[in-house]
Amino acid sequence: MDIVARIDHALQAALTAHTAADGPPRLAAAIRHAVFPGGARIRPRLCVAVAAACGDDQPALTDAAASAIELLHCASLVHDDLPCFDDAATRRGQASVHAAYGERLAVLGGDALIVMAFQLLAEAAAVAPLRAATLIGTLARGVGAPYGIVAGQAWECETQVALRDYQRAKTGALFAAATLAGAEAAGAPSAPWRALGECLGEAYQVADDIRDVVADPAALGKPVGRDLALGRPSWVSDWGLAASVRRFQDLVERAVEAIPPCRGQAALQALVRLESERLVPQALCQDLIREAA
Amino acid sequence: MDIVARIDHALQAALTAHTAADGPPRLAAAIRHAVFPGGARIRPRLCVAVAAACGDDQPALTDAAASAIELLHCASLVHDDLPCFDDAATRRGQASVHAAYGERLAVLGGDALIVMAFQLLAEAAAVAPLRAATLIGTLARGVGAPYGIVAGQAWECETQVALRDYQRAKTGALFAAATLAGAEAAGAPSAPWRALGECLGEAYQVADDIRDVVADPAALGKPVGRDLALGRPSWVSDWGLAASVRRFQDLVERAVEAIPPCRGQAALQALVRLESERLVPQALCQDLIREAA
Repeated sequence: MDIVARIDHALQAALTAHTAADGPPRLAAAIRHAVFPGGARIRPRLCVAVAAACGDDQPALTDAAASAIELLHCASLVHDDLPCFDDAATRRGQASVHAAYGERLAVLGGDALIVMAFQLLAEAAAVAPLRAATLIGTLARGVGAPYGIVAGQAWECETQVALRDYQRAKTGALFAAATLAGAEAAGAPSAPWRALGECLGEAYQVADDIRDVVADPAALGKPVGRDLALGRPSWVSDWGLAASVRRFQDLVERAVEAIPPCRGQAALQALVRLESERLVPQALCQDLIREAA
Repeated sequence: MDIVARIDHALQAALTAHTAADGPPRLAAAIRHAVFPGGARIRPRLCVAVAAACGDDQPALTDAAASAIELLHCASLVHDDLPCFDDAATRRGQASVHAAYGERLAVLGGDALIVMAFQLLAEAAAVAPLRAATLIGTLARGVGAPYGIVAGQAWECETQVALRDYQRAKTGALFAAATLAGAEAAGAPSAPWRALGECLGEAYQVADDIRDVVADPAALGKPVGRDLALGRPSWVSDWGLAASVRRFQDLVERAVEAIPPCRGQAALQALVRLESERLVPQALCQDLIREAA
């Protein structure tokens, strides 16, 4: 089973286990809508890839960690799309949750996804309870206050914010949690894996800023031009397009170099390069730098 | 230290640990506003009282469980008060979180409180990792889909709902989780404690329905008449005031009888009776039944 199929299988099992026929049916539908069809599943793929590189001796715990990370990411998308934030009508090429099910079920669906993420890890804890507790702490720090993705979104509610602090929390925190969690699920020391997650998270955020300016909304599956319209801090508005593209390329190289020596090193390097090509193709990078020159 | 002081001390420590000077300051302020000043803290008091009755041999784990329960309850209040739900301007006698900090920080503050609840238990796990995992599962079931308080709130988004299913999820689930968690934190079998939580939760919900009709908003610290205004299922609108009062009295008696034999049995019985008097005083019960006759 390839990594994406493994993750989707684990997510399907989680949703089936946590939505019952005698629970509120529209909440169950809203939760499913938030998780399927998925996006690139880059965060859980990263978690599984790191776990594999570290031996993956407790695959059920790895599956729980990867699924939990994706559920937390989906919850953040559902809440970020709400009318009081981005007011986005589409997401992943379909209606956003609040557009399809209303604002109330979007709030509650996001809440339920956060809870379900931690529940998955608690339910997988029997095989290695201390690892599970470490994982729950790592994911909570990647999501909550003061440095996780919720804090990142909250920086948009402040009058002053440093771009790096904002983006490190809004995007970097969950990428870093994904690489740390991969190692922790496999019982390996996690600190050497932090830099990979942080570099990739920042690369992803810079790519997102670039795509917000240059992408086709149909290809992106969500509206473009939102950073500018909402006055959000953005690499492109602060540094210009060419400097942002060069920053993206630099971060991808640093991510590749940050992968610690391990038996899965080559596979991970290939994954990082493949993902960077999906985010902003090298040919487009060259075009954008040439145009700006 | 009495139970309320113990709980407030644990909550203060949790908030201090999870809000840092270099995190977003308004998010930290919104989180604190949601938790202090507190209400009756009945759910965490119940958790600590049950843990004490079971020996409380790991008080740090009990504190984490009780704090987590209160944080989850506070999160539900913040989200339930949002404009898309109750649109309540006041809560616990002060401005609701969205009235004071805006809708975005109310959404994010609630999210951060949910995450923090699970983080507290993960951080207290080292002394008894399997107990912590059990606790996280119990609290997640009490809060999430398909039977927890989030599901209870989601029943308000359905066209058809049974009053018992709605109230069991909306209020009963977290009360049951509180008694179960008290036993689990102390390493005792939790099943015998479920009935106490369920009876008290239902009594609390019936009392809430009664108070929504008869209470003074200043004394209640939140608006009255909301169930009727919002067309929500309610004991009083379904069964009338006198039958609701009799149901409340019956549930309090059943809660007292549900307390398993243990060294703290008398203290717990006293707590239940004291709390029921705070909810709907016996003298008022007699008046309401007499008026309806």
